[in-house]
Amino acid sequence: MQRFEINRLCRYCTEVFQRAGIPAEDAALTSEALVLTDMRGISSHGVLRAAHYITCIQAGGLRPDGRLEITADGGSFLRLSAAGGMGIPASMRATDLLVSHARNQAIVIATLNHSDHFGAAGLYAQRCADAGLIGFAMSNTCPMIAVTGAAAKGIGNNPFAYAAPGRRYRGVLFDVCMSVVASGKIQIAAAENRKIPQGWIVDRDGHPTDDPQQIYHGGSFLPFAGHKGYGFAVMVELLAGILAQAGMLAEVRSWNKTPGRESNTGHCFIAVNPACFGGDEHFRQRVDQMIDSLTGAPAAPEVKHIYYPGEMEFAHEAEARAHGVPLPDASLVELHKAGDLVGLPFQLPPVTT
Amino acid sequence: MQRFEINRLCRYCTEVFQRAGIPAEDAALTSEALVLTDMRGISSHGVLRAAHYITCIQAGGLRPDGRLEITADGGSFLRLSAAGGMGIPASMRATDLLVSHARNQAIVIATLNHSDHFGAAGLYAQRCADAGLIGFAMSNTCPMIAVTGAAAKGIGNNPFAYAAPGRRYRGVLFDVCMSVVASGKIQIAAAENRKIPQGWIVDRDGHPTDDPQQIYHGGSFLPFAGHKGYGFAVMVELLAGILAQAGMLAEVRSWNKTPGRESNTGHCFIAVNPACFGGDEHFRQRVDQMIDSLTGAPAAPEVKHIYYPGEMEFAHEAEARAHGVPLPDASLVELHKAGDLVGLPFQLPPVTT
Repeated sequence: MQRFEINRLCRYCTEVFQRAGIPAEDAALTSEALVLTDMRGISSHGVLRAAHYITCIQAGGLRPDGRLEITADGGSFLRLSAAGGMGIPASMRATDLLVSHARNQAIVIATLNHSDHFGAAGLYAQRCADAGLIGFAMSNTCPMIAVTGAAAKGIGNNPFAYAAPGRRYRGVLFDVCMSVVASGKIQIAAAENRKIPQGWIVDRDGHPTDDPQQIYHGGSFLPFAGHKGYGFAVMVELLAGILAQAGMLAEVRSWNKTPGRESNTGHCFIAVNPACFGGDEHFRQRVDQMIDSLTGAPAAPEVKHIYYPGEMEFAHEAEARAHGVPLPDASLVELHKAGDLVGLPFQLPPVTT
Repeated sequence: MQRFEINRLCRYCTEVFQRAGIPAEDAALTSEALVLTDMRGISSHGVLRAAHYITCIQAGGLRPDGRLEITADGGSFLRLSAAGGMGIPASMRATDLLVSHARNQAIVIATLNHSDHFGAAGLYAQRCADAGLIGFAMSNTCPMIAVTGAAAKGIGNNPFAYAAPGRRYRGVLFDVCMSVVASGKIQIAAAENRKIPQGWIVDRDGHPTDDPQQIYHGGSFLPFAGHKGYGFAVMVELLAGILAQAGMLAEVRSWNKTPGRESNTGHCFIAVNPACFGGDEHFRQRVDQMIDSLTGAPAAPEVKHIYYPGEMEFAHEAEARAHGVPLPDASLVELHKAGDLVGLPFQLPPVTT
């Protein structure tokens, strides 16, 4: 793992995305989002993905100049389209529209279709929370999970996030997908030739397996907590797929490389304004109080610290602001790939401490 | 298990609640809600609870004549209070207000404080769905769950439900609490002197245990899927506790018997109107299509049928409409208790088939 200066890394990524055909402002938004995700310690959704996005653009499956369009604006609702472009800049803009609408409303909902992979859901939820709102963000994905009782992939790993602001604390942030474990853990176990616990995945015939390689041979993820993860995945599909008038289930083609054929991933964002419910200050103080109470409980044996949702991400972010953005080797490999794809070799020097 | 005629059972329960001091209309709403819950096969939240409610009323912890009050009506939001009364009739009325507001809005949110136990969350979500809306319902509860890393109860088992309407299908309905398993399963294991799997509960010191008796000796439930269940419980606390300006965490006193001291449980209800997102008919057809796709997947070995969320509840309800409300022995015992508490012995004859 090496650390890099925030601004220089952002500038480099922005230039890479611009060279891939993304307009300057959208390139900057994408870069900001990916680097922030790395800063929060979620390297699986940070600059690691840059080369994937560019590959999709160069293959014709993603319009680099597709830009957020407002299909309908009803005050408390927005219907938006990413017009076949990148999911991240569209979602950053969608969130900013949502936030500005929620300034004078108790609750606002925005749906976004004709989109693609939108990175970490928590980005958009936290962007709402940083503006003083409760934020929700979710997306469907191509099928990855075998629903309870099924032998094959039937529904996406549908990320879901929420965040809310505090006063002394920044607030709470929660970002999950619907499988028992994130796909990264399976990939690492496969790479290291380790077995995985039963219950994480099934093989191509729906049999339980402890062999992570099966995920590359038609296997499927299982939903967390059985029917509970299944039900939450369906909730996201209802809002981000159906309500957004996007693709749903197998209609969604994530990381799509087919020229002229969009992924049609859908997202949904909701913001709630605490000012309508007792006031901003009251809300923030109660969030602080909740965090104090949750983390002040007696700890279980051998537990040193009780975390609140988001605490780890905020700590990572503060550390990155002080010492630079941490990038694991896998992310560096992908950054080099991204640079090579657009003829701008990655040559940033790591921060030396 | 015996079955009883729907209308006669409803009438009996209504009279029992009236004798406990609940005004006629609220008594009927409570009775309708509990019997419907039994019809859907969720006997843990049906008439089984009638005697508990009456005990709380008679002890002075619950105002039988507390009735839904509108604290603020902002069009897209409602702040409501149950005025220290029963959670069920207040939530039934709150849902009806929510539905009527959502007729002309994309999204409406209602919070409800000064309430008490509101029965099955799915009741209110499904009431929205039966009106053509996507409905969400949630409530906080007194602390029952040890959050990740904690040794003691820190947060409620915060029920959360959603429902959405279909066309050929009634739709989807999902209703969960945040613990690994429902408390009823632990109680049954304890009663039958059986061990439970590790990971369901911890003892009073936070040690893992397979002894269900520990739940009666200071033990705590564990959240489903570890930090995921913890995070969803916090989401409900944010909306139903903090946003609703109700009690939160240990401030909530469920099944409260202290005279003049309300439980201050909080709820939150949200309705989304698909008419603003491509139209009612389009939405319903896509829900049908989603259900067909989910349940049409190849089944895992030894699985005969893939269920969609709510399918079991709807099947139970249809069966109850045809053959009567199924009441297990435990529910009958409690109904007898309820009747005795108000001097109206339970003497309904079961349906004979």
